[in-house]
Amino acid sequence: MSVINLAEKFRQIDKQWTPKIVGELNGQHVRLAKLQGEFVWHHHDDEDELFLVIDGELEMQFRDRTETIRAGEFLIVPRGVEHCPRAVAEVQVMLFEPASTVNTGTAGGERTVDPERI
Amino acid sequence: MSVINLAEKFRQIDKQWTPKIVGELNGQHVRLAKLQGEFVWHHHDDEDELFLVIDGELEMQFRDRTETIRAGEFLIVPRGVEHCPRAVAEVQVMLFEPASTVNTGTAGGERTVDPERI
Repeated sequence: MSVINLAEKFRQIDKQWTPKIVGELNGQHVRLAKLQGEFVWHHHDDEDELFLVIDGELEMQFRDRTETIRAGEFLIVPRGVEHCPRAVAEVQVMLFEPASTVNTGTAGGERTVDPERI
Repeated sequence: MSVINLAEKFRQIDKQWTPKIVGELNGQHVRLAKLQGEFVWHHHDDEDELFLVIDGELEMQFRDRTETIRAGEFLIVPRGVEHCPRAVAEVQVMLFEPASTVNTGTAGGERTVDPERI
């Protein structure tokens, strides 16, 4: 039960696309990630996912459109909805999602990572 | 499924100590509140609560100490732990907590509010 400073935690993340756990409550994780470039198309069967942009700009691609999320904005991606995050420049993102959430969802593959605590 | 801008939502909140629902996922609420002054001592039997400070400075009083949460920082208050938020100047806070969370916890009383969606 201590105060978590987001900037300090982001400084500890050197690799992009590797969400780190910085908090846990009610079976949910607070994760931080640095993203740049394009991820993989995927969905989560049982998890809704919140993306809060802390710094930079994140494009969330859906099959029918793209939403741009800027610093101070968030978007909730409901379970079952295919999405693919993309960022031209590095973006710092705070995620709020069930502890069971796998970053690549049901797609799996080489970009799947097991989130570490920092 | 649309992008939520925190500043825009905060502009719609004119009353302090009235958390507003701005998102829902996995049975959890994202709520925004403006706080100033001192709240009531309370705890939640079954809900962990996350306080992310967006603007200003929040003091979270516990029975044995006080933690100061500044903009860009968060604190998780576990279920069962008595706490009492306090802020000298108005602070803008984002809350993550189960949809069942009552602002005054088990203490109840006149400062209990039923959160509205904005």
